[in-house]
Amino acid sequence: MSPKPVLHTIPPDIVAAKDYAVYARERLTDMAWEYLDSGAADEVTLRRNIEAFQSISLKGRMLEDVGGGHTRLSLFGHVYEHPVFLAPVAYQKLFHAEGELACALGASVTQTLMVLSTLSTTPLEDVARAHGTPLWFQLYLQRDRAVSLELIRRAEREGYRALVVTVDAPLAGIRNREQRAGFRLPDGVSPVNLPPFTPHAPVGAGQSLVFDSLMPSAPTWADIEWVLAEARLPVVLKGILAPEDADRACRMGVAGIGVSNHGGRVLDTLPAAIEVLPEISEVVNGRAAIFLDGGVRRGSDVFKALALGATAVMIGRPYIQALATAGPLGVAHLIRTLREELEIVMAVSGTPTLARISRAHLRL
Amino acid sequence: MSPKPVLHTIPPDIVAAKDYAVYARERLTDMAWEYLDSGAADEVTLRRNIEAFQSISLKGRMLEDVGGGHTRLSLFGHVYEHPVFLAPVAYQKLFHAEGELACALGASVTQTLMVLSTLSTTPLEDVARAHGTPLWFQLYLQRDRAVSLELIRRAEREGYRALVVTVDAPLAGIRNREQRAGFRLPDGVSPVNLPPFTPHAPVGAGQSLVFDSLMPSAPTWADIEWVLAEARLPVVLKGILAPEDADRACRMGVAGIGVSNHGGRVLDTLPAAIEVLPEISEVVNGRAAIFLDGGVRRGSDVFKALALGATAVMIGRPYIQALATAGPLGVAHLIRTLREELEIVMAVSGTPTLARISRAHLRL
Amino acid sequence: MSPKPVLHTIPPDIVAAKDYAVYARERLTDMAWEYLDSGAADEVTLRRNIEAFQSISLKGRMLEDVGGGHTRLSLFGHVYEHPVFLAPVAYQKLFHAEGELACALGASVTQTLMVLSTLSTTPLEDVARAHGTPLWFQLYLQRDRAVSLELIRRAEREGYRALVVTVDAPLAGIRNREQRAGFRLPDGVSPVNLPPFTPHAPVGAGQSLVFDSLMPSAPTWADIEWVLAEARLPVVLKGILAPEDADRACRMGVAGIGVSNHGGRVLDTLPAAIEVLPEISEVVNGRAAIFLDGGVRRGSDVFKALALGATAVMIGRPYIQALATAGPLGVAHLIRTLREELEIVMAVSGTPTLARISRAHLRL
Amino acid sequence: MSPKPVLHTIPPDIVAAKDYAVYARERLTDMAWEYLDSGAADEVTLRRNIEAFQSISLKGRMLEDVGGGHTRLSLFGHVYEHPVFLAPVAYQKLFHAEGELACALGASVTQTLMVLSTLSTTPLEDVARAHGTPLWFQLYLQRDRAVSLELIRRAEREGYRALVVTVDAPLAGIRNREQRAGFRLPDGVSPVNLPPFTPHAPVGAGQSLVFDSLMPSAPTWADIEWVLAEARLPVVLKGILAPEDADRACRMGVAGIGVSNHGGRVLDTLPAAIEVLPEISEVVNGRAAIFLDGGVRRGSDVFKALALGATAVMIGRPYIQALATAGPLGVAHLIRTLREELEIVMAVSGTPTLARISRAHLRL
Repeated sequence: MSPKPVLHTIPPDIVAAKDYAVYARERLTDMAWEYLDSGAADEVTLRRNIEAFQSISLKGRMLEDVGGGHTRLSLFGHVYEHPVFLAPVAYQKLFHAEGELACALGASVTQTLMVLSTLSTTPLEDVARAHGTPLWFQLYLQRDRAVSLELIRRAEREGYRALVVTVDAPLAGIRNREQRAGFRLPDGVSPVNLPPFTPHAPVGAGQSLVFDSLMPSAPTWADIEWVLAEARLPVVLKGILAPEDADRACRMGVAGIGVSNHGGRVLDTLPAAIEVLPEISEVVNGRAAIFLDGGVRRGSDVFKALALGATAVMIGRPYIQALATAGPLGVAHLIRTLREELEIVMAVSGTPTLARISRAHLRL
Repeated sequence: MSPKPVLHTIPPDIVAAKDYAVYARERLTDMAWEYLDSGAADEVTLRRNIEAFQSISLKGRMLEDVGGGHTRLSLFGHVYEHPVFLAPVAYQKLFHAEGELACALGASVTQTLMVLSTLSTTPLEDVARAHGTPLWFQLYLQRDRAVSLELIRRAEREGYRALVVTVDAPLAGIRNREQRAGFRLPDGVSPVNLPPFTPHAPVGAGQSLVFDSLMPSAPTWADIEWVLAEARLPVVLKGILAPEDADRACRMGVAGIGVSNHGGRVLDTLPAAIEVLPEISEVVNGRAAIFLDGGVRRGSDVFKALALGATAVMIGRPYIQALATAGPLGVAHLIRTLREELEIVMAVSGTPTLARISRAHLRL
Repeated sequence: MSPKPVLHTIPPDIVAAKDYAVYARERLTDMAWEYLDSGAADEVTLRRNIEAFQSISLKGRMLEDVGGGHTRLSLFGHVYEHPVFLAPVAYQKLFHAEGELACALGASVTQTLMVLSTLSTTPLEDVARAHGTPLWFQLYLQRDRAVSLELIRRAEREGYRALVVTVDAPLAGIRNREQRAGFRLPDGVSPVNLPPFTPHAPVGAGQSLVFDSLMPSAPTWADIEWVLAEARLPVVLKGILAPEDADRACRMGVAGIGVSNHGGRVLDTLPAAIEVLPEISEVVNGRAAIFLDGGVRRGSDVFKALALGATAVMIGRPYIQALATAGPLGVAHLIRTLREELEIVMAVSGTPTLARISRAHLRL
Repeated sequence: MSPKPVLHTIPPDIVAAKDYAVYARERLTDMAWEYLDSGAADEVTLRRNIEAFQSISLKGRMLEDVGGGHTRLSLFGHVYEHPVFLAPVAYQKLFHAEGELACALGASVTQTLMVLSTLSTTPLEDVARAHGTPLWFQLYLQRDRAVSLELIRRAEREGYRALVVTVDAPLAGIRNREQRAGFRLPDGVSPVNLPPFTPHAPVGAGQSLVFDSLMPSAPTWADIEWVLAEARLPVVLKGILAPEDADRACRMGVAGIGVSNHGGRVLDTLPAAIEVLPEISEVVNGRAAIFLDGGVRRGSDVFKALALGATAVMIGRPYIQALATAGPLGVAHLIRTLREELEIVMAVSGTPTLARISRAHLRL
């Protein structure tokens, strides 16, 4: 069954983020779908990201005057209209012919922050110059520090406002569904921001691919020190789940912590991001901004994350599904939907601004 | 498939409240069904209202003498035969040609209190004069206090015995199923007690529908003060879930608190009403009557609510399903069924009167 | 589909108690099946009786010497070969042409105690004189004490060894599946031990069937006092779930307590019998024997009940299913199966006798 | 449907241990499959072995330097490449024409320890001399100590490195699915290491098969004392779940404890092995090595068992399924898959060696 064409209007039965999944499935190849949708191993963490949000109860506060409220926040010297950011997602031309540019257009219409992936299929300069979208740059540290440094300098030059260093994927997760689909990048889809790929040294007899080839070139805390010394932008570490790691990152001076299990894509049976957020939030204690991704599908999920200490959230799969369904229009509609849901939760919780949202608004 | 006709006898396979759902589904348009049946967002709260009751255990007390027991209660100066009240439900002509009048007839046969909605499709005067049904009036506060006051005065004039002010729906909940069904009121079904609808002011660029248009005209605690000052009837606030709100309402002098999440229709992932009842009951501590709605489907649910502090319960969807199935006869049969179930629970729990029902009769 | 004939051999795919359910379903009318199989209301308690056993963990003790062990117990002056008794079940001719006599034959072959119901479809004298089965008599107290006393005297005369007074069914439970099947006793099936049925006085206008007609003639603690004074046999009260009731019964001098929710047939959302057993056992503290029924389907369930304080267990639906499938042979095979399962659990738990089974053999 | 032929390459959709189950099902007779796949009674423990692992959360530690790490361990004077051992499984010619020899070949390729069953269908000498696979010998104690001693001496002579005495199966578990399939050993499949089977003495009237025939010849602690006195190899007791038993075994001087419920095959509703591991580990306190089997399906399961105190784990059903699917190649591929999964968990948990894995790497 060949994929259906991208839509140019939003059909009336798309009324929530999850409705995009059905439409996207029909518009993607099996390989692209499995790459997007699958999680590591038995997908325990993938499911738990969703279920953990549903098991947290709102409290509901009635009759408060919230007229004139808003969802704005100020962060690293910039103001953002709302706290729903687009997480870095690689290879967006897998999902839409215009890839990252289509996404950036949808984001700019809704004044939404987009985090561009190192593995973008569009040059980072082109994205920066296209639509005036607020942008951060996601950095996968490269084996060669000169290559990493050049990426940092390009992002700084093009007006990206922060660096998001992903630390939880030193190697690819074992996503069984993606493996069964025989995933490989199709022709014309490649990480154009990077120099040509140099294969790892072959593994000798009795050697371990993981320990003797991949991990020796994986980033370590020493590399984070180096980034912090070199970068002129605020640095966010994305992929932190242990409070000990959050504390160490704060002591090193990061500007933000990204609480994330990489969408359940790297290591199965990690806890849901929202489950560990309270303990991370407690240890960070205001020293850094906190971002959460993993399982955000409703405005109420955004509210809950903020109530438990997040500064803002990031969404991943939902916006790619919206992109695959209806391009920039889909992305914009999705974000508007989530934002309206968030505003309603705020209204019925008696919280006219993000700053007023606290644990007291949950029934814990 | 066009809807089936309303029944004039109760078929022998309708033996419990939930049996009406199947029959009602066949007798309603898709739009009317989804309007009635759906809940907000992922319907977590909708399901939880039901499941929370099932997870509470009765204790069972045998061999007590309960002969001559009864289910009567006295409330705001009136005696009611049993504690199963009809919650306010809007637009009843969506479900039966005679709408609220059919309902009131079924209620009067069983001497059941009915709470008429502000959004009744029958003038409140007609309902009051038709069948001698015990009535309370549910009030949605209107943007214009004069309109609200006129509603209050009309209700007082017609012998309604209490005012139920709904406070948990300052805006419509996002019910995705109802949205997908493209719900709109059909011709001939309208809120006849209200003056013609005046649209909200249009929202300017960069403004929020929620914060800048809807919520500024939503009721606040100040409006409740005003109602309490103006109304000559006992006032019940319906839609309270937070103990802090219950306490504030008591201090303002309300006669009753309605513990409710609006049937899971406004905000998803709120707790079940029965889950928060114990803490509300503790803070109210006798200062006001307590009503509970949400998930009551069995006489044992009524018993559990009373054991945890409720004075009486309200049912919503079940009686509308009964109305759609068999009109007044359906409503009367449903109520008789619930009441008999309640009496059996009371008998096997050793509690001949409602006043004897306590937490000691549950296995907590 | 007309019922299949009763089997004369046990098919090789019947290897556990639950396997009989499938065969029995094919051999019973819808009415008989629903009467047997259904539980009250939503059948929460019916399911919970089963699930509660599965959620209790054995501990496993290896390498103990249990050679020469056995399952015998001594009770009210008699020795029984094993602790799996047949609970009283009414109207057994609904399930097999020979009714209680077929059952008694299967029980006698396996030296199993059978408790004959007041609502037996075979005269209690015929059962007593047929097969030498060890028998107790179950008593439903009748409105007229003279009728009750006559039943007691007949049982005493015929060598029944104990009286089991059922106290948890002062009125019939509302079993919705049974109601939907339109259950009524077929011709030729009737409670032959009782005088012809006298209907209750009709209920007047405004009166309650439950409180004004049924419950005034239901047994109370005063009736139990009377039975204890009159009966020459040990008296067991069956249907106790509250520790307070167990304590009162012990103080009155009963010989045994039957912890039971009547197979989930009377009141839904009561706890599983095995859930309340520990607290009953604690309050009884050796003053009376304790019997448990409800959900026993495996030898491991018997073991768990004994570990938590039961003296013996009773089974209900399983033996009726076996009776319907293969008559006396089915009953005998079922009991042998359960007993072998019990012996294996005892062997792998290091407990050669029932007296050695304790809470220490569970992982609580 | 006759079984499909064994594969000679691994199809691309086998990417995880559980994928072998589907292929194996198609390659085995119903009898062999049910023998392999079924568990005791209702299979509560069988499922719980799997689910208990999934409910344990990893913690995730990022940015640690784990280059040069490895999975080696040293045990009883030998070094093993990784901690995934092959549990003893009887009658392997049921699953592959070459039976234990095929398995040993797969194990040797991956330098994996194999525990040969007493009930091997290949002489223990043949297995020892074939492929240089590291081997332990599993001993079922025989009624006649001379037979047991001869088995021990043969294993010692052939270079088996340890004795694994299985203590949790004094009699066959009641596996209902296997019973329904009418399992019996086909011609040509027999326990060739043992003398011809002597039936137990027949059971007399009123005697118990379990207590009077089977259990009197089952092994007891006294037999373990005897084995410890006679054997020149380290002795592991496999099938311990109670801390008291583990303690007694340590005091007697065993070299290892096998925490196991026999794959849920003997007694249902025992806890999952991984559930009791922490308490066993605490009581053993370093006095013996600890092995765990039951439910290991992922590298993350291996990691969790080690974090909770196991020295190594054993797998059972998965390698037999791999054997049935693709012979030695299947076994080798399975082990490589599990080992790579383990290495990835170690990498993303900051643990370069097994010794570094601790409870601190779980989120308990």
